[in-house]
Amino acid sequence: MTGRFITLEGIEGVGKSTNLEFAAGVLRDAGLDVLVTREPGGTPLAEAIRETLLRPSDEAMPPTAELLLMFAARSVHLENRIRPALESGRWVLCDRFTDATFAYQGGGRGETREAIRWLQGLVQAGLQPDLTLLLDVPVEVGLARAGRRGAADRFEQEQAEFFERVRAAYLDLAAAEPGRFAVVDADRPLPSVQDELRRVLIKFIEAND
Amino acid sequence: MTGRFITLEGIEGVGKSTNLEFAAGVLRDAGLDVLVTREPGGTPLAEAIRETLLRPSDEAMPPTAELLLMFAARSVHLENRIRPALESGRWVLCDRFTDATFAYQGGGRGETREAIRWLQGLVQAGLQPDLTLLLDVPVEVGLARAGRRGAADRFEQEQAEFFERVRAAYLDLAAAEPGRFAVVDADRPLPSVQDELRRVLIKFIEAND
Repeated sequence: MTGRFITLEGIEGVGKSTNLEFAAGVLRDAGLDVLVTREPGGTPLAEAIRETLLRPSDEAMPPTAELLLMFAARSVHLENRIRPALESGRWVLCDRFTDATFAYQGGGRGETREAIRWLQGLVQAGLQPDLTLLLDVPVEVGLARAGRRGAADRFEQEQAEFFERVRAAYLDLAAAEPGRFAVVDADRPLPSVQDELRRVLIKFIEAND
Repeated sequence: MTGRFITLEGIEGVGKSTNLEFAAGVLRDAGLDVLVTREPGGTPLAEAIRETLLRPSDEAMPPTAELLLMFAARSVHLENRIRPALESGRWVLCDRFTDATFAYQGGGRGETREAIRWLQGLVQAGLQPDLTLLLDVPVEVGLARAGRRGAADRFEQEQAEFFERVRAAYLDLAAAEPGRFAVVDADRPLPSVQDELRRVLIKFIEAND
């Protein structure tokens, strides 16, 4: 039996790293073999593309180039890591996937939904996450938390208005696909957030038994 | 008045580097301000993508990822270098462009013409070369010449059959757009090849006066 594909999404400072580890622990405690990975990146070749995407530069990155690099990295990650893991029966837990492209390159940068959908078809050939956990906080909360970290990459340098568009796009995606998305209010103490994540994951595991 | 966009195409070992310099000289002798550039690459950001594309690696490069990286590099090159030069009235002479994508990723790797055309529309938004010089030699001649050079990149490592498909795709493109293409038989002594290149370029300059 093939594994299940779970993605974790949200804007900067929403607590993705901490909760990615937590979610992996819940899956492993249930006896599942889990691959934890991230986008953009996930393989040496895809990480090289990630580096080009995230590194601040004096040279402007055209939005279309950013969009194509995201899907190039995704193609490498899917073919060389995610699909082989799923086919061998492992579960895959991925920090960001195509919903992030709709949110950041679509909502944030203004690339059209039609272009993103076309590229999604080319690269994914029908493969979609089985469950997407969207950690949601107000933008000011996320940015305040993210501001405590080190040097900002090209995305983290964006302004609040950009992240408002990203957040709104995420919430639109979740509203359009309520069966795949679980929106988790992450503007609460961590134990409450994780209680809800555990509940969602256990229910999903039971449904996929 | 905007400048003119001229591209030089052909398989490995066809003499592109030598003839690129020669063609630039013909244009400059005619008093034109010429930007000489190359694909993939042409700006620091696009050269970083080129490096990811060409470097031999233990990790397989999915054909779709290769196609997207080519167009990502092209988007950067077009927006940050080619369009600004053309708009300022400079002529642009480019070593390879989208015809190479139809030839290598289409003919060579089997990516569909429909996908390449869609990406071409996304990235180029109607911009096409005004003149394309296709240097043509039989594959065995090209490979014998290219073999004299240093370490092979990821494309140069391909076999003769791959380059036969690339050459055939180039000749199909030229047959479909005889007004844009000039096919130059490069399986002749260099002075003959360059006489023909000069003749084609002078005629093009006169027509665009």
